[in-house]
Amino acid sequence: MSDPIGVSLLGAGNVGAGVIRALTAGSERYAAAVGRRLELRHALVRDASRAREGLEPHQLTTDLDVVLGDDATSIVVELMGGEEPARSYIAEALGSGRHVVTANKEVIAKHGAALRDLAAEGGVRLLYEASVGGGIPIISPLFRDLLANDITAVTAIINGTTNYMLTAMTQDGADYADALADAQRLGYAEPDPTADVEGHDAAFKLAILCGLAFHVEVGPEDVVQRGITQVTARDIRYASTLGYAIKLLAEGRLVDGELLASVQPTLIARDEPLSKVDGVLNAVQVEGDLVGRVVLEGPGAGAAPTSSAVLADVLDIARDIVAERRPPPPQAYRSMRVRSPGEHHARRYVRMTVADRPGVLGEIGTALGARGVSIASVVQFEVDEDARTAEIVLTTHTGPGEALESALAEIAAAEVVVEVGNVLAMAG
Amino acid sequence: MSDPIGVSLLGAGNVGAGVIRALTAGSERYAAAVGRRLELRHALVRDASRAREGLEPHQLTTDLDVVLGDDATSIVVELMGGEEPARSYIAEALGSGRHVVTANKEVIAKHGAALRDLAAEGGVRLLYEASVGGGIPIISPLFRDLLANDITAVTAIINGTTNYMLTAMTQDGADYADALADAQRLGYAEPDPTADVEGHDAAFKLAILCGLAFHVEVGPEDVVQRGITQVTARDIRYASTLGYAIKLLAEGRLVDGELLASVQPTLIARDEPLSKVDGVLNAVQVEGDLVGRVVLEGPGAGAAPTSSAVLADVLDIARDIVAERRPPPPQAYRSMRVRSPGEHHARRYVRMTVADRPGVLGEIGTALGARGVSIASVVQFEVDEDARTAEIVLTTHTGPGEALESALAEIAAAEVVVEVGNVLAMAG
Repeated sequence: MSDPIGVSLLGAGNVGAGVIRALTAGSERYAAAVGRRLELRHALVRDASRAREGLEPHQLTTDLDVVLGDDATSIVVELMGGEEPARSYIAEALGSGRHVVTANKEVIAKHGAALRDLAAEGGVRLLYEASVGGGIPIISPLFRDLLANDITAVTAIINGTTNYMLTAMTQDGADYADALADAQRLGYAEPDPTADVEGHDAAFKLAILCGLAFHVEVGPEDVVQRGITQVTARDIRYASTLGYAIKLLAEGRLVDGELLASVQPTLIARDEPLSKVDGVLNAVQVEGDLVGRVVLEGPGAGAAPTSSAVLADVLDIARDIVAERRPPPPQAYRSMRVRSPGEHHARRYVRMTVADRPGVLGEIGTALGARGVSIASVVQFEVDEDARTAEIVLTTHTGPGEALESALAEIAAAEVVVEVGNVLAMAG
Repeated sequence: MSDPIGVSLLGAGNVGAGVIRALTAGSERYAAAVGRRLELRHALVRDASRAREGLEPHQLTTDLDVVLGDDATSIVVELMGGEEPARSYIAEALGSGRHVVTANKEVIAKHGAALRDLAAEGGVRLLYEASVGGGIPIISPLFRDLLANDITAVTAIINGTTNYMLTAMTQDGADYADALADAQRLGYAEPDPTADVEGHDAAFKLAILCGLAFHVEVGPEDVVQRGITQVTARDIRYASTLGYAIKLLAEGRLVDGELLASVQPTLIARDEPLSKVDGVLNAVQVEGDLVGRVVLEGPGAGAAPTSSAVLADVLDIARDIVAERRPPPPQAYRSMRVRSPGEHHARRYVRMTVADRPGVLGEIGTALGARGVSIASVVQFEVDEDARTAEIVLTTHTGPGEALESALAEIAAAEVVVEVGNVLAMAG
């Protein structure tokens, strides 16, 4: 066997430690699979004086130039997270002729196109299997295995934090605040949970999935984002009675040659596979003209599952280096109009408190009908005898969001409606 | 764009027609993805006088030499099925410098090693994503995306015919003969259903999966095979009462560095994902040291889903041709002892008819205990007052098959046992 293939890390936190552990434990197997040894060269860290398992002190550096000045490093693995300096460092590494593997969803979602161009110019590869769905094979299957399909929809549960919280709210009847506190205690939610609970994390991932599935450059700004902070234990209970689970669903869909992309709490019918993806699991469902529907499910986060994806990319590059294979050609992109939130067509769940007297449903139905919103069902859940009000849930047939919104604005102002409690999308 | 890349088919039946349809319908998209057009050249058929949609009469031939004599054909797609002449034709195509894509599980399971060697010698590729799980991405994920893992188990539902039958027997209480007749009427089962119901089809597929997952050459002869012909509606009902579904489970597992591979009807606990894979769906669950557990699910058969996998391989090769990429290095294999059926450790379900009088369970328990078989539970299901017999189901803790078998032989001969009705494996 000839010289080892050098791998250096940018960032050596939780996932970095997992990658180092796996590289050490799997070293014989990886050498057999690749045909040459992988050698851990440097790790760029914030504090080089702190000891890290699996690394000698001389391998730690706070200086990117030390990493890129090392001729033996062929593959750079970026695991710092966040937009900067991760983006600049990836760009520098690609510019210096290094292959780059990253788990950074934010950088790829926002700057993927520019970085892929940079990689192509340099004749090197930029891989990011770990950026979506942790250990679940999804980037490479979209890039390769499902390429023959005209993909019409990608629907996914790709944020473990919110799925853990919604599962707890469903199974234990916990309310939002308790579910969040519980997730934070277990380390599933950050002290500042904004990126997860507001849907930003899932939006980054969905943008990446849409890019691959639909061959369009999609950025996070193209994704309609709504978090789970307004979902109540009551909504979950009512949805359950109606036969649905509420999930933070990331959905990309082509309708009449236009892209609809959204991350929002969504009612999913209980016989749909995604409704049963519970806890911190992730799952991605892809619909294509040939394959029909495939569902890929597994652990969406954690050091070991993420290492599985990171190292899959590293091994793929290493095998190509040994076989002296050129990088594959970049994916072809097309352009496509992105629909605004008001143009998103969906069935919708509307919870509202209304006066408990005859004729109320008639008034509401008339107001909705005047805007072309068609009611699919109405169920009365709770009556407040003293206030003479009732809480009802109505579901609509598929229609544009803006029609419902303006009808609801009118209805909310009407005397018979006390409050519009919540409006949620329904899948399918 | 330069010259098109020529693709010829061996076999133009159901799947072949699907591939032709997809190649025609997707031709613009495929040209954009590959950077060159794909051109359908020839189709080798049994009867060249019969017209085929999407092909001119001059493209049809009964002579392999016409296909291999066509210099413009770079990729040969084998869709004839069966062992011969498919194996010889694939070998000839590889020998002539053609890349080969095949959906042929039997040829790959039996002759994969020799054909892969032939491809490596010729500097061409042999791909077979469609040989297992129809449109589900599974071959390529095992080869690439999960490569960093020390994979410990692959468990799968990979025969749609038997899964359709078992699902019907579960949901409608149908018996085996009715479920088979129904499947035949719908075209899910062949007039001669042997290959499906006896587990041979699933064994071919499992051998391929084990080879990729465990890096071992595994042939169908290494797979313990037991079909579903002995599964009764009664077993399914009893299993259901105990909280299990019965599935034809294909399972490959490493235990103490040795391989256990089996295809057999198996009780799966109802909270396990594979227990919910119903009808003609397929699913493969992979367990690895890093990733934990991932499940890939989708349509396991049919012309369109199979075309999705066949064309994924074709497009992958075509992209490599355009980029002038060499073939990737072949997978490294290791050798491993394969365990015999008697050495398979499992929990087991045993249904038996016994005398309905005190002391019977004691006698059975004593006989099992003497062979080291430990009972996990005993449930009495039905009592025949006239015959003074009872039907019981006992489940065992994990143990080797041979101990249970010899204990059951002894028990069957005992006066208190009228009949051992069925013995089935239990997953987990």
